Amino acid sequence: MKRIQLSHGGGGEEMDVLIRDLFYRHFSNDILLRSEDAAVLEVNGKIAFTTDSYTVTPLFFNGGDIGKIAVAGTLNDLAMMGARPLYLSCAFIIEEGLPHETLERIVLSMKEELSKSKAQIVCGDTKVVPKGSVDQLFINTSGIGEIVLPALSAHSICESDVIIVSRDIGTHGACILASREGIELQSALSSDCATLWPAVDALIAEKVGIRAMRDATRGGIAAVLNEWAVASDICIQVQEQSVPICDEVRGICELLGMEPYEFANEGTFILAVDPCDAMRAVEILHQFGMSSNAAIIGKATVLKAGRVILNSPWGSTRYLERPKGELLPRIC
Amino acid sequence: MKRIQLSHGGGGEEMDVLIRDLFYRHFSNDILLRSEDAAVLEVNGKIAFTTDSYTVTPLFFNGGDIGKIAVAGTLNDLAMMGARPLYLSCAFIIEEGLPHETLERIVLSMKEELSKSKAQIVCGDTKVVPKGSVDQLFINTSGIGEIVLPALSAHSICESDVIIVSRDIGTHGACILASREGIELQSALSSDCATLWPAVDALIAEKVGIRAMRDATRGGIAAVLNEWAVASDICIQVQEQSVPICDEVRGICELLGMEPYEFANEGTFILAVDPCDAMRAVEILHQFGMSSNAAIIGKATVLKAGRVILNSPWGSTRYLERPKGELLPRIC
Repeated sequence: MKRIQLSHGGGGEEMDVLIRDLFYRHFSNDILLRSEDAAVLEVNGKIAFTTDSYTVTPLFFNGGDIGKIAVAGTLNDLAMMGARPLYLSCAFIIEEGLPHETLERIVLSMKEELSKSKAQIVCGDTKVVPKGSVDQLFINTSGIGEIVLPALSAHSICESDVIIVSRDIGTHGACILASREGIELQSALSSDCATLWPAVDALIAEKVGIRAMRDATRGGIAAVLNEWAVASDICIQVQEQSVPICDEVRGICELLGMEPYEFANEGTFILAVDPCDAMRAVEILHQFGMSSNAAIIGKATVLKAGRVILNSPWGSTRYLERPKGELLPRIC
Repeated sequence: MKRIQLSHGGGGEEMDVLIRDLFYRHFSNDILLRSEDAAVLEVNGKIAFTTDSYTVTPLFFNGGDIGKIAVAGTLNDLAMMGARPLYLSCAFIIEEGLPHETLERIVLSMKEELSKSKAQIVCGDTKVVPKGSVDQLFINTSGIGEIVLPALSAHSICESDVIIVSRDIGTHGACILASREGIELQSALSSDCATLWPAVDALIAEKVGIRAMRDATRGGIAAVLNEWAVASDICIQVQEQSVPICDEVRGICELLGMEPYEFANEGTFILAVDPCDAMRAVEILHQFGMSSNAAIIGKATVLKAGRVILNSPWGSTRYLERPKGELLPRIC
């Protein structure tokens, strides 16, 4: 079996071969091939710029892998800012001895995920570190997008704005947790990991009055909703029974005594929209597989500024707190 | 002693505190503070975009640390493309248990290095991974710069172009090697790690006819010169005695039977310039501390296309080959 050697990161001939035969071959595009110390891009006006490192373990899981997350996650950060994803950088930190085949599977998965938007990988970096210095493979992707819907902000949510979730929550977190805990599931629970741009693009094209969007990654929807409530100095009231949660996620939560609101997602986003546009937004989202069970889950009120309130179906209420501590390291 | 905990990477309250009290405090600027999922930037025209992950060990060495390299290295990649550095992203992957003080020293060093250009850190990411999943700390920085000198390229070197090195070579490689091998040096050999933009800016302002620039990092000047020779289908002839090499680097090379041409640098660049401008370029470089011993080391000829030839002071010649294998992992 071919394995990655330290020489693949040495800046010499072996690294050139790896870059040419693996990265250039699969990510091929004119800009990348012309890149020297940096890619040269033509950009005008307002752009969004974001970075994320991905350390997820295991490298492969139901519904995705570290490469898919590395592409989708960074593209999603751009999409959430109302930016059409254009360019990605891609930096690999590889543990000496990683099977070449593993790296190639991940590269192919990145290529596949890239095809879901028009974004291109235009520059990169390859480091190989001695065995034990890193656990298998970390990937950093940074992204540049053209802002087509400006003024989205966690600070701009107003009273009566409607809160929508794009799909059932918590599958990525539950999926990684289950695979680490060795929980065998009868049904195939799959991570939500997905590129959100196509759905966001449609919402923008249909001129939906979006105030804020955020993908609910680490910290889950609990983190996003609390951040919004504080940033906009408003109360967010959520109807518990309106939040879509699949049976498998519910089961894992019950089994482990956890709450799905804090579970990480990798292809699920929350929107705050103008109340007049809420139904239309949900209908648009339903046209996409990744958001076919989008739902209105609550609204912004003035009841208790800076707090998120969960209303149970039985009439009781409780605060949904900001997550604390570490639910699950290396979730993304 | 305060140590980084897994919860500092969990997406909840503890992570917010770390970001606010450490990263925002030291990297503070309006764009960073307004950043949500991505930073919003105003950019026009041609930009350069680059990424690098830094895995150097030890974290602190004579003349620098991983933070200084992470800032200078990425800014240098922009400068080498004739781009004025504008924006950086910064992504930390931290091993659980890293002393908070260590992280703060590194952040302060990044801040200090940032002050040498007008570049700002505008977005970031923080991951904390369990003990053993990464060796202490890796940093990725990606950079965006405005191209002020277009058309620099490894492909555009012509016959008679003069090859200049900005300073004595190999100090970063020698310094890391010495610290790992436990070689005690009488004199304080120090890494060349530095932000090159001020010198590059001056060369551009003085309209020096630069065809190509490249910082000689992994693989050293041997890698850069060979890449240029192949890309421009030209011969590069180097006068061995003209290449500045300090006594300490010579000593380490002799001790370990290595060649300084392959030693990594972190603040040393090679230029190919129009022969009419060569002397002027060297004079400009001499005005900066980081390049006070810049020297003409050779020229492009048609003797042997695609090859680099070293001429010894005794009249003999040999090929300077592309580096192979791995001299020293985790050099940067």
